[in-house]
Amino acid sequence: MKTALILIGCPEAPSQTPLTLYTSYKLTQMGYNVTIVANPAATKLLEVSDPENHYFNNELDIEKALADLSENSYDLFLGLVHKDAAASYFVTFYHILKTKSIALIFEKDADLLEEYVNIINENTDAEMVVARVFHNPIPLKVKLDKVLKNL
Amino acid sequence: MKTALILIGCPEAPSQTPLTLYTSYKLTQMGYNVTIVANPAATKLLEVSDPENHYFNNELDIEKALADLSENSYDLFLGLVHKDAAASYFVTFYHILKTKSIALIFEKDADLLEEYVNIINENTDAEMVVARVFHNPIPLKVKLDKVLKNL
Repeated sequence: MKTALILIGCPEAPSQTPLTLYTSYKLTQMGYNVTIVANPAATKLLEVSDPENHYFNNELDIEKALADLSENSYDLFLGLVHKDAAASYFVTFYHILKTKSIALIFEKDADLLEEYVNIINENTDAEMVVARVFHNPIPLKVKLDKVLKNL
Repeated sequence: MKTALILIGCPEAPSQTPLTLYTSYKLTQMGYNVTIVANPAATKLLEVSDPENHYFNNELDIEKALADLSENSYDLFLGLVHKDAAASYFVTFYHILKTKSIALIFEKDADLLEEYVNIINENTDAEMVVARVFHNPIPLKVKLDKVLKNL
């Protein structure tokens, strides 16, 4: 079975949890065994959202993941980037996993959005899905759907 | 079948969508037919979070609801309050529906939290579930579980 790792950041953005559940759902439908790696606060939001685990099953703590992962642990790596810290984590995981990688970059401030795009662009060869959003998840969802269709 | 209406506010708080899905899930398990009333932005976040509609089925636009609802349209009214506007909407719906009502009040700022509690307290006889939270949904979830158990 194909495997995918979804990395999520701090839970400040209201659209992060919805987009994570949706991405996990879509990848599972595409035949991936999905693991979500997150800090405890972000993990709690996922668990409260999906009490019967219809959309995700496997969670991994971010610090534990950094210690355990290695090259090609996953067939696909997908990260949600909407903070500096999330961009740094994405770059770190990218260079550990060395696998097909997609960054979902979203932020309501145009300058910050450009900054995150630059960090990912300069430090990785990951595919980028970029949208200027805060609490409307639809622009990113539409772009993500297109990228996943071409996987 | 018993019916419940869940009112949610603007989607700025990262825990609002998770708590809404959880509340809808719990009430459905308790035998309620649940309807969620929200503005379009908050509705989109719910739809993206739950693509297969495991946790909610019925949505109602907030303006349409105000025009259509009347006394005892629902057996239970539950509202998420984390903004002035949400507090005002709660009070309005409370006086239209005149039914068993619960306000879930959450906010990270202690002064604002007190302000919302005062609005609900002075203008309704609703039961209140109050927690000082922003992106950790667990304190409110624990208190909500206790209140629902005693319904």
